[in-house]
Amino acid sequence: MRILGIDPGLAIVGFGFVDKLGSRIVPVQYGAIQTEAHTPTVDRLEIIYESTLQLIDKYKPDAMGIEKLFFNRNVTTALTVGEARGVVMLAAKQRGLQIGEYTPLQVKQAIVGYGKAEKKQVQEMVKLFLKLSAVPKPDDVADALAIAICHAHSSSLQNKLNGSVRG
Amino acid sequence: MRILGIDPGLAIVGFGFVDKLGSRIVPVQYGAIQTEAHTPTVDRLEIIYESTLQLIDKYKPDAMGIEKLFFNRNVTTALTVGEARGVVMLAAKQRGLQIGEYTPLQVKQAIVGYGKAEKKQVQEMVKLFLKLSAVPKPDDVADALAIAICHAHSSSLQNKLNGSVRG
Repeated sequence: MRILGIDPGLAIVGFGFVDKLGSRIVPVQYGAIQTEAHTPTVDRLEIIYESTLQLIDKYKPDAMGIEKLFFNRNVTTALTVGEARGVVMLAAKQRGLQIGEYTPLQVKQAIVGYGKAEKKQVQEMVKLFLKLSAVPKPDDVADALAIAICHAHSSSLQNKLNGSVRG
Repeated sequence: MRILGIDPGLAIVGFGFVDKLGSRIVPVQYGAIQTEAHTPTVDRLEIIYESTLQLIDKYKPDAMGIEKLFFNRNVTTALTVGEARGVVMLAAKQRGLQIGEYTPLQVKQAIVGYGKAEKKQVQEMVKLFLKLSAVPKPDDVADALAIAICHAHSSSLQNKLNGSVRG
Protein backbone atom coordinates (compact mmCIF):
# COMPACT_ATOMS: atom_id res chain seq x y z
CA MET A 1 0.00 0.00 0.00
CA ARG A 2 1.36 3.40 -1.00
CA ILE A 3 0.49 6.48 1.04
CA LEU A 4 0.85 10.17 0.24
CA GLY A 5 1.27 12.46 3.25
CA ILE A 6 0.54 16.17 2.75
CA ASP A 7 1.37 19.24 4.83
CA PRO A 8 -0.56 21.97 3.01
CA GLY A 9 0.21 25.68 2.67
CA LEU A 10 -0.06 28.34 -0.03
CA ALA A 11 3.71 28.96 -0.24
CA ILE A 12 4.87 25.37 0.45
CA VAL A 13 3.00 22.08 0.22
CA GLY A 14 5.16 19.37 1.77
CA PHE A 15 4.59 15.91 0.31
CA GLY A 16 5.91 12.46 1.13
CA PHE A 17 5.16 9.07 -0.40
CA VAL A 18 5.79 5.94 1.69
CA ASP A 19 5.19 2.26 1.00
CA LYS A 20 3.77 0.06 3.72
CA LEU A 21 5.24 -3.42 3.20
CA GLY A 22 3.85 -5.64 5.95
CA SER A 23 5.05 -4.01 9.18
CA ARG A 24 7.77 -2.00 7.41
CA ILE A 25 7.31 1.53 6.12
CA VAL A 26 9.80 2.73 3.49
CA PRO A 27 10.18 6.14 1.85
CA VAL A 28 9.48 6.38 -1.89
CA GLN A 29 9.74 10.07 -2.72
CA TYR A 30 9.36 13.35 -0.86
CA GLY A 31 9.68 17.05 -1.51
CA ALA A 32 7.70 20.27 -1.73
CA ILE A 33 5.45 22.09 -4.18
CA GLN A 34 6.44 25.74 -3.86
CA THR A 35 4.69 28.84 -5.18
CA GLU A 36 6.02 32.39 -5.27
CA ALA A 37 4.72 35.16 -3.01
CA HIS A 38 4.04 37.71 -5.75
CA THR A 39 1.94 35.32 -7.84
CA PRO A 40 -1.87 35.91 -7.63
CA THR A 41 -3.51 33.52 -5.14
CA VAL A 42 -5.64 31.85 -7.78
CA ASP A 43 -2.57 31.06 -9.89
CA ARG A 44 -0.82 29.59 -6.84
CA LEU A 45 -3.87 27.42 -6.16
CA GLU A 46 -3.89 26.20 -9.74
CA ILE A 47 -0.17 25.31 -9.52
CA ILE A 48 -0.80 23.37 -6.29
CA TYR A 49 -3.81 21.55 -7.78
CA GLU A 50 -2.05 20.63 -11.04
CA SER A 51 1.17 19.60 -9.27
CA THR A 52 -0.78 17.38 -6.85
CA LEU A 53 -2.54 15.67 -9.77
CA GLN A 54 0.85 15.15 -11.48
CA LEU A 55 2.40 13.64 -8.33
CA ILE A 56 -0.58 11.31 -7.87
CA ASP A 57 -0.45 10.24 -11.52
CA LYS A 58 3.31 9.61 -11.29
CA TYR A 59 3.52 7.78 -7.95
CA LYS A 60 0.02 6.26 -7.89
CA PRO A 61 -0.70 6.23 -4.13
CA ASP A 62 -3.69 4.32 -2.74
CA ALA A 63 -4.37 6.76 0.07
CA MET A 64 -3.63 10.26 1.31
CA GLY A 65 -3.10 11.47 4.88
CA ILE A 66 -3.52 15.17 5.64
CA GLU A 67 -3.65 17.31 8.78
CA LYS A 68 -7.13 17.98 10.08
CA LEU A 69 -6.72 20.93 12.38
CA PHE A 70 -3.91 23.12 13.42
CA PHE A 71 -3.13 25.40 16.28
CA ASN A 72 -1.23 28.57 17.21
CA ARG A 73 -1.69 30.26 13.89
CA ASN A 74 -3.69 33.33 12.97
CA VAL A 75 -6.93 33.64 11.02
CA THR A 76 -5.30 34.88 7.81
CA THR A 77 -2.86 31.96 7.81
CA ALA A 78 -5.73 29.54 8.44
CA LEU A 79 -7.60 30.95 5.43
CA THR A 80 -4.67 30.47 3.04
CA VAL A 81 -3.80 27.02 4.45
CA GLY A 82 -7.46 26.12 3.92
CA GLU A 83 -7.34 27.25 0.28
CA ALA A 84 -4.31 25.05 -0.41
CA ARG A 85 -5.81 22.17 1.58
CA GLY A 86 -9.06 22.45 -0.37
CA VAL A 87 -7.50 22.09 -3.82
CA VAL A 88 -5.18 19.25 -2.68
CA MET A 89 -8.13 17.32 -1.24
CA LEU A 90 -10.12 17.92 -4.42
CA ALA A 91 -7.25 16.50 -6.52
CA ALA A 92 -7.03 13.42 -4.26
CA LYS A 93 -10.79 12.89 -4.42
CA GLN A 94 -10.79 13.20 -8.21
CA ARG A 95 -8.13 10.45 -8.41
CA GLY A 96 -10.13 8.18 -6.09
CA LEU A 97 -7.69 8.15 -3.15
CA GLN A 98 -8.84 7.05 0.28
CA ILE A 99 -8.37 10.13 2.50
CA GLY A 100 -7.44 10.15 6.18
CA GLU A 101 -7.47 13.34 8.25
CA TYR A 102 -5.37 13.52 11.43
CA THR A 103 -4.97 16.12 14.14
CA PRO A 104 -1.40 17.19 15.09
CA LEU A 105 -2.02 15.27 18.35
CA GLN A 106 -2.73 12.05 16.47
CA VAL A 107 0.36 12.51 14.29
CA LYS A 108 2.59 13.06 17.35
CA GLN A 109 1.11 10.06 19.11
CA ALA A 110 1.65 7.87 16.08
CA ILE A 111 5.28 8.94 15.59
CA VAL A 112 6.70 9.69 19.06
CA GLY A 113 4.14 7.91 21.22
CA TYR A 114 2.77 10.90 23.08
CA GLY A 115 0.81 13.95 22.01
CA LYS A 116 2.93 16.66 23.59
CA ALA A 117 6.09 15.81 21.67
CA GLU A 118 8.11 18.71 20.25
CA LYS A 119 8.13 19.30 16.50
CA LYS A 120 11.89 18.53 16.43
CA GLN A 121 11.34 15.16 18.15
CA VAL A 122 8.75 14.23 15.55
CA GLN A 123 11.16 15.13 12.76
CA GLU A 124 14.02 13.13 14.31
CA MET A 125 11.72 10.11 14.65
CA VAL A 126 10.71 10.43 10.99
CA LYS A 127 14.41 10.37 10.05
CA LEU A 128 15.10 7.28 12.21
CA PHE A 129 11.91 5.53 11.19
CA LEU A 130 12.54 5.89 7.46
CA LYS A 131 16.34 5.38 7.83
CA LEU A 132 17.10 8.75 6.21
CA SER A 133 20.57 10.31 6.50
CA ALA A 134 19.12 13.69 7.57
CA VAL A 135 15.82 15.32 8.50
CA PRO A 136 14.20 16.36 5.21
CA LYS A 137 13.96 20.12 4.64
CA PRO A 138 11.97 22.34 4.68
CA ASP A 139 10.04 21.31 7.82
CA ASP A 140 6.90 20.85 5.71
CA VAL A 141 8.47 17.83 4.02
CA ALA A 142 9.31 16.10 7.31
CA ASP A 143 5.79 16.90 8.53
CA ALA A 144 4.27 15.41 5.38
CA LEU A 145 6.24 12.18 5.91
CA ALA A 146 5.08 12.11 9.56
CA ILE A 147 1.46 12.30 8.38
CA ALA A 148 2.06 9.52 5.84
CA ILE A 149 3.51 7.30 8.61
CA CYS A 150 0.57 8.20 10.85
CA HIS A 151 -1.85 7.09 8.14
CA ALA A 152 0.10 3.84 7.64
CA HIS A 153 -0.14 3.07 11.37
CA SER A 154 -3.77 4.02 11.49
CA SER A 155 -4.68 1.86 8.49
CA SER A 156 -2.77 -1.13 10.02
CA LEU A 157 -4.83 -0.74 13.17
CA GLN A 158 -7.95 -0.47 11.07
CA ASN A 159 -7.06 -3.70 9.25
CA LYS A 160 -6.40 -5.49 12.53
CA LEU A 161 -9.71 -4.33 13.91
CA ASN A 162 -11.50 -5.38 10.73
CA GLY A 163 -9.62 -8.69 10.87
CA SER A 164 -10.70 -9.40 14.42
CA VAL A 165 -14.29 -8.51 13.57
CA ARG A 166 -14.21 -10.83 10.58
CA GLY A 167 -12.41 -13.56 12.62
CA MET B 1 -20.58 42.38 -18.73
CA ARG B 2 -21.80 39.60 -16.44
CA ILE B 3 -20.35 39.25 -12.94
CA LEU B 4 -20.55 36.37 -10.48
CA GLY B 5 -20.30 37.35 -6.80
CA ILE B 6 -19.34 34.63 -4.31
CA ASP B 7 -19.59 34.44 -0.52
CA PRO B 8 -17.74 31.18 0.23
CA GLY B 9 -18.25 28.70 3.04
CA LEU B 10 -18.20 24.93 3.48
CA ALA B 11 -21.90 24.66 4.45
CA ILE B 12 -23.22 27.50 2.23
CA VAL B 13 -21.69 29.19 -0.79
CA GLY B 14 -23.79 32.24 -1.64
CA PHE B 15 -23.74 33.18 -5.32
CA GLY B 16 -25.20 36.05 -7.32
CA PHE B 17 -24.98 36.88 -11.01
CA VAL B 18 -25.52 40.49 -12.11
CA ASP B 19 -25.33 42.16 -15.51
CA LYS B 20 -23.71 45.54 -15.84
CA LEU B 21 -25.52 47.38 -18.63
CA GLY B 22 -23.91 50.81 -18.95
CA SER B 23 -24.46 52.42 -15.57
CA ARG B 24 -27.25 49.99 -14.61
CA ILE B 25 -26.70 46.78 -12.68
CA VAL B 26 -29.45 44.17 -12.91
CA PRO B 27 -29.80 40.82 -11.14
CA VAL B 28 -29.68 37.69 -13.32
CA GLN B 29 -29.78 34.78 -10.89
CA TYR B 30 -28.84 34.21 -7.27
CA GLY B 31 -28.95 31.45 -4.69
CA ALA B 32 -26.76 29.14 -2.62
CA ILE B 33 -24.80 25.92 -3.02
CA GLN B 34 -25.43 24.01 0.19
CA THR B 35 -23.66 20.93 1.55
CA GLU B 36 -24.69 18.79 4.49
CA ALA B 37 -22.83 18.76 7.80
CA HIS B 38 -22.41 14.98 8.06
CA THR B 39 -20.88 14.64 4.59
CA PRO B 40 -17.06 14.17 4.57
CA THR B 41 -15.22 17.46 3.92
CA VAL B 42 -13.69 16.25 0.68
CA ASP B 43 -17.12 15.32 -0.70
CA ARG B 44 -18.45 18.76 0.25
CA LEU B 45 -15.52 20.38 -1.54
CA GLU B 46 -16.16 18.32 -4.65
CA ILE B 47 -19.86 19.33 -4.61
CA ILE B 48 -18.87 23.01 -4.29
CA TYR B 49 -16.30 22.73 -7.09
CA GLU B 50 -18.63 20.87 -9.48
CA SER B 51 -21.59 23.15 -8.71
CA THR B 52 -19.47 26.25 -9.32
CA LEU B 53 -18.34 24.89 -12.69
CA GLN B 54 -21.98 24.12 -13.59
CA LEU B 55 -23.13 27.63 -12.62
CA ILE B 56 -20.32 29.21 -14.66
CA ASP B 57 -21.12 27.01 -17.66
CA LYS B 58 -24.84 27.87 -17.42
CA TYR B 59 -24.66 31.62 -16.81
CA LYS B 60 -21.32 32.34 -18.53
CA PRO B 61 -20.03 35.25 -16.43
CA ASP B 62 -17.02 37.29 -17.57
CA ALA B 63 -15.72 37.95 -14.09
CA MET B 64 -15.96 36.81 -10.48
CA GLY B 65 -15.81 38.92 -7.31
CA ILE B 66 -14.97 37.21 -4.02
CA GLU B 67 -14.16 38.35 -0.47
CA LYS B 68 -10.47 38.70 0.25
CA LEU B 69 -10.27 38.73 4.02
CA PHE B 70 -12.68 38.40 6.80
CA PHE B 71 -12.79 39.30 10.46
CA ASN B 72 -14.24 38.22 13.76
CA ARG B 73 -14.21 34.54 13.03
CA ASN B 74 -12.14 31.79 14.58
CA VAL B 75 -9.25 29.81 13.13
CA THR B 76 -11.28 26.65 12.44
CA THR B 77 -13.91 28.64 10.55
CA ALA B 78 -11.17 30.39 8.57
CA LEU B 79 -9.71 27.03 7.57
CA THR B 80 -13.02 25.67 6.24
CA VAL B 81 -13.91 28.96 4.51
CA GLY B 82 -10.47 28.81 2.91
CA GLU B 83 -11.09 25.27 1.64
CA ALA B 84 -14.35 26.32 -0.03
CA ARG B 85 -12.79 29.54 -1.33
CA GLY B 86 -9.88 27.57 -2.81
CA VAL B 87 -11.99 25.21 -4.91
CA VAL B 88 -14.32 28.04 -6.07
CA MET B 89 -11.35 30.13 -7.20
CA LEU B 90 -9.84 27.11 -8.94
CA ALA B 91 -13.12 26.56 -10.86
CA ALA B 92 -13.23 30.25 -11.89
CA LYS B 93 -9.60 30.16 -13.01
CA GLN B 94 -10.17 27.00 -15.03
CA ARG B 95 -13.04 28.74 -16.89
CA GLY B 96 -10.89 31.79 -17.59
CA LEU B 97 -12.84 34.30 -15.47
CA GLN B 98 -11.26 37.60 -14.47
CA ILE B 99 -11.11 37.47 -10.64
CA GLY B 100 -11.44 40.42 -8.26
CA GLU B 101 -10.83 40.09 -4.52
CA TYR B 102 -12.37 42.63 -2.15
CA THR B 103 -12.13 43.20 1.58
CA PRO B 104 -15.40 43.56 3.56
CA LEU B 105 -14.43 47.25 3.92
CA GLN B 106 -14.30 47.69 0.15
CA VAL B 107 -17.65 45.93 -0.28
CA LYS B 108 -19.32 48.16 2.33
CA GLN B 109 -17.84 51.30 0.80
CA ALA B 110 -19.03 50.29 -2.67
CA ILE B 111 -22.59 49.52 -1.53
CA VAL B 112 -23.36 51.88 1.36
CA GLY B 113 -20.65 54.49 0.84
CA TYR B 114 -18.78 54.02 4.07
CA GLY B 115 -16.76 51.15 5.51
CA LYS B 116 -18.36 50.88 8.93
CA ALA B 117 -21.85 50.11 7.63
CA GLU B 118 -23.83 47.39 9.40
CA LYS B 119 -24.39 44.09 7.62
CA LYS B 120 -28.16 44.80 7.57
CA GLN B 121 -27.63 48.16 5.88
CA VAL B 122 -25.56 46.50 3.16
CA GLN B 123 -28.31 43.93 2.59
CA GLU B 124 -31.04 46.60 2.41
CA MET B 125 -28.99 48.53 -0.12
CA VAL B 126 -28.53 45.39 -2.22
CA LYS B 127 -32.33 44.98 -2.24
CA LEU B 128 -32.93 48.62 -3.26
CA PHE B 129 -30.09 48.65 -5.75
CA LEU B 130 -31.28 45.55 -7.60
CA LYS B 131 -34.99 46.43 -7.17
CA LEU B 132 -35.71 43.13 -5.36
CA SER B 133 -38.94 42.66 -3.42
CA ALA B 134 -37.07 41.33 -0.36
CA VAL B 135 -33.55 40.81 0.96
CA PRO B 136 -32.39 37.46 -0.47
CA LYS B 137 -31.93 34.69 2.11
CA PRO B 138 -29.77 33.22 3.53
CA ASP B 139 -27.48 36.17 4.29
CA ASP B 140 -24.75 34.57 2.17
CA VAL B 141 -26.81 35.20 -0.97
CA ALA B 142 -27.26 38.91 -0.22
CA ASP B 143 -23.54 39.12 0.58
CA ALA B 144 -22.66 37.44 -2.72
CA LEU B 145 -24.78 39.99 -4.62
CA ALA B 146 -23.07 42.81 -2.68
CA ILE B 147 -19.68 41.50 -3.81
CA ALA B 148 -20.90 41.26 -7.42
CA ILE B 149 -22.08 44.91 -7.28
CA CYS B 150 -18.76 45.90 -5.70
CA HIS B 151 -16.89 44.27 -8.59
CA ALA B 152 -19.18 46.01 -11.11
CA HIS B 153 -18.42 49.43 -9.53
CA SER B 154 -14.76 48.66 -9.30
CA SER B 155 -14.52 47.60 -12.94
CA SER B 156 -16.45 50.77 -14.02
CA LEU B 157 -13.95 52.86 -12.15
CA GLN B 158 -11.14 50.90 -13.72
CA ASN B 159 -12.60 51.56 -17.19
CA LYS B 160 -12.98 55.27 -16.46
CA LEU B 161 -9.40 55.45 -15.25
CA ASN B 162 -8.20 53.56 -18.30
CA GLY B 163 -10.34 55.87 -20.48
CA SER B 164 -8.83 59.01 -19.02
CA VAL B 165 -5.34 57.60 -19.41
CA ARG B 166 -6.06 56.76 -23.04
CA GLY B 167 -7.74 60.18 -23.60
